[in-house]
Amino acid sequence: MSTWSAVDVITAKRDGFALSDAAITWILTAYVNGDVAEEQMSALLMAIFFNGLASNELRTWTAQMIASGERLDLSGLSRPTVDKHSTGGVGDKISLILAPLVAACGAAVPQLSGRGLGHTGGTLDKLETIPGWRATLSNDEIRDQLERVGAVICAAGEGLAPVDRKLYALRDVTGTVESIPLISSSIMSKKIAEGTGALVLDVKVGRGAFIKDYARARELATTMVALGHGHGVATVAQLTSMDEPLGRCVGNALEVTESVEVLRGAGPSDVRELTLALARIMVELVGIDVDPATKLDDGSAYEVYRQMILAQGGDVDATSPVASSRELVVAARAGVVQSVDALSVGIAAWRLGAGRARKEDPVSAAAGVICLVRRGDEVSAGQPLFELHADDDAHLERGRATIADAVVLGDESVNARPLLLERVEKT
Amino acid sequence: MSTWSAVDVITAKRDGFALSDAAITWILTAYVNGDVAEEQMSALLMAIFFNGLASNELRTWTAQMIASGERLDLSGLSRPTVDKHSTGGVGDKISLILAPLVAACGAAVPQLSGRGLGHTGGTLDKLETIPGWRATLSNDEIRDQLERVGAVICAAGEGLAPVDRKLYALRDVTGTVESIPLISSSIMSKKIAEGTGALVLDVKVGRGAFIKDYARARELATTMVALGHGHGVATVAQLTSMDEPLGRCVGNALEVTESVEVLRGAGPSDVRELTLALARIMVELVGIDVDPATKLDDGSAYEVYRQMILAQGGDVDATSPVASSRELVVAARAGVVQSVDALSVGIAAWRLGAGRARKEDPVSAAAGVICLVRRGDEVSAGQPLFELHADDDAHLERGRATIADAVVLGDESVNARPLLLERVEKT
Repeated sequence: MSTWSAVDVITAKRDGFALSDAAITWILTAYVNGDVAEEQMSALLMAIFFNGLASNELRTWTAQMIASGERLDLSGLSRPTVDKHSTGGVGDKISLILAPLVAACGAAVPQLSGRGLGHTGGTLDKLETIPGWRATLSNDEIRDQLERVGAVICAAGEGLAPVDRKLYALRDVTGTVESIPLISSSIMSKKIAEGTGALVLDVKVGRGAFIKDYARARELATTMVALGHGHGVATVAQLTSMDEPLGRCVGNALEVTESVEVLRGAGPSDVRELTLALARIMVELVGIDVDPATKLDDGSAYEVYRQMILAQGGDVDATSPVASSRELVVAARAGVVQSVDALSVGIAAWRLGAGRARKEDPVSAAAGVICLVRRGDEVSAGQPLFELHADDDAHLERGRATIADAVVLGDESVNARPLLLERVEKT
Repeated sequence: MSTWSAVDVITAKRDGFALSDAAITWILTAYVNGDVAEEQMSALLMAIFFNGLASNELRTWTAQMIASGERLDLSGLSRPTVDKHSTGGVGDKISLILAPLVAACGAAVPQLSGRGLGHTGGTLDKLETIPGWRATLSNDEIRDQLERVGAVICAAGEGLAPVDRKLYALRDVTGTVESIPLISSSIMSKKIAEGTGALVLDVKVGRGAFIKDYARARELATTMVALGHGHGVATVAQLTSMDEPLGRCVGNALEVTESVEVLRGAGPSDVRELTLALARIMVELVGIDVDPATKLDDGSAYEVYRQMILAQGGDVDATSPVASSRELVVAARAGVVQSVDALSVGIAAWRLGAGRARKEDPVSAAAGVICLVRRGDEVSAGQPLFELHADDDAHLERGRATIADAVVLGDESVNARPLLLERVEKT
């Protein structure tokens, strides 16, 4: 392989040339083997930030990321497989409801997740508030549970696209996170390696999402949809608004409780709306002719949820952990809620203890924010706006400082904004 | 200094923002100290490749490179100081003639040089073919020789802009060499740190130069001239053509011999023309009213050359080393020389043994190419075009393969092209 040099690959991309399949395969393999140094890969990543990767380059790049590890084989299951990935938002507990719901419709949902980093915990952190629940399963356990229960939410094994961990750690310290091809390949390499046959992507855009700009969110969605199809995974993306928190609850155990409400046919209307929209795409992708709403309302989705938790050792009837320090935040004046800022609520929840700053930090089960009002609500002076939950007064103090500006009160009436923005399919 | 983070500095440059003086000072200091990792600096260098450095950013960046080491103080000399830097070309032996010539006019020329890397050796490699000549001088020896002889050509100490070595080694492996602000700061930091009061830059453009494009060469010249003035060094750049080799000789000892010819008032006209053009700028910059041509013709420049070599231990009357393997390359047909390709001649000289591929490689004293024809010359079939010199037949063989295409013969007559292209001054 001495015919290649890292400098040639870097300068080719730097100067706007497309990288050949052989060049991409060589450099990612050499990077994994340590023959291409971190400082060379970071220079290449920055060149990719500026000059992008064309669709065929990105397909090969992603294929090579997948080839760096194992790929789960779920082809032996009696049910069709379909998964969902969300780019992440405040109060986004949809996976907890969606996986058992779509399983109740007859599909198998292999939801292999990473840990949350940022304002709130990830799906695994939420489920880990249930006593006994186990995030780590073997590949055989995953296949068995998918066949038997139809839904698995567990930690993605280290064997899936392992080069992504190395690349992500490098991007994180070199200012090369915010690149659409690099984000797309990171997400899609793991989802494709997990072996799902179909995939829905919830691409969030707005103040509480990591992408604020609509055109960029649309570009990310289009890129990931093309990548999915390029690897034989039927993929559809749904752009959704993330200006306001999703649902009322933001925090690990709080979100489990709210998810159970929705699974039992109740809960906040926005959470139900988004869950059903994604579920409808998922059943459509695998050709199942069932209206998911019926599975929420007849209790069968909740029953699958209970089986899914039990199968992973969780005490599904345990009481939720309760925060020892609680406080109400009230309206300083009467008025109409002009906005509830998802980002401020998210940061408040994080400071209350619900999220982590570094991978190795613990998260609090009970900490979080309950949003008592939504955009458009009329409130009187002194009316509670938020309930803050924390494990101690020090955390409560930190959350309180952030939540102050999360609600804007005004005098004009305002309308609710749509949650579902645009469906992006293969072009 | 915990208020700064490398990622913030990288993403600011990546996103097109100007870096503050404090940010630049912090990141270069932290890089020297090892607090900013190589992979972070390479990402920043690639972002600078794309988004550049504005003149005030570049001034601070260069100032910080200078501040990473010592700055020679030449203010105590009785003569004004003026130096020259060339961006490098095939057969470029101008420094060997220019330094003693300008000293003979009454200035002091502190020519502190690096080692050559690429097709031919650097100025130090050429002078080291003189038995006994010593490249390394102490700062006191430099000052003493400048006062006494007026000219020093020696190795730049490791104390001058030491961060440049670290940055250059990183750029070399990360595809970030070809950036005008990074090239400019690398060259100018060392020239400013060497303590010269004035500077002429010979910026070469053409097939045998590292910059092929005129507009880019002009941008490099303008950038370096501004940087010099920003640090109090009166700087003028001369753009010169590097399509054909400069003079007849390419190779270390061969170039010393040719330089002595010019110092004695003879030698190839292009070498004399360029040397005098640069010398006139240099004496003008320091306000000396002497025509340098008189100092070549009356033997005084040669006398300073002899003193300069003797002062550094060189046996100025020693015979030049002679190559043991020599060969003539002859014209395959009669015709007019349409071009002599500097790059091919340079590579041939390198393969014959005159240049090095890696810093630690030795160079041959005697190896090289003598060009027997120039663009526009009429030749008959079988007439010698080049003389190849090497230390053994294996090297001769390698050089022969490269030289074949260096001359293009045709039937139309062609004119010589101008050597001096444009003078670039402070705007």
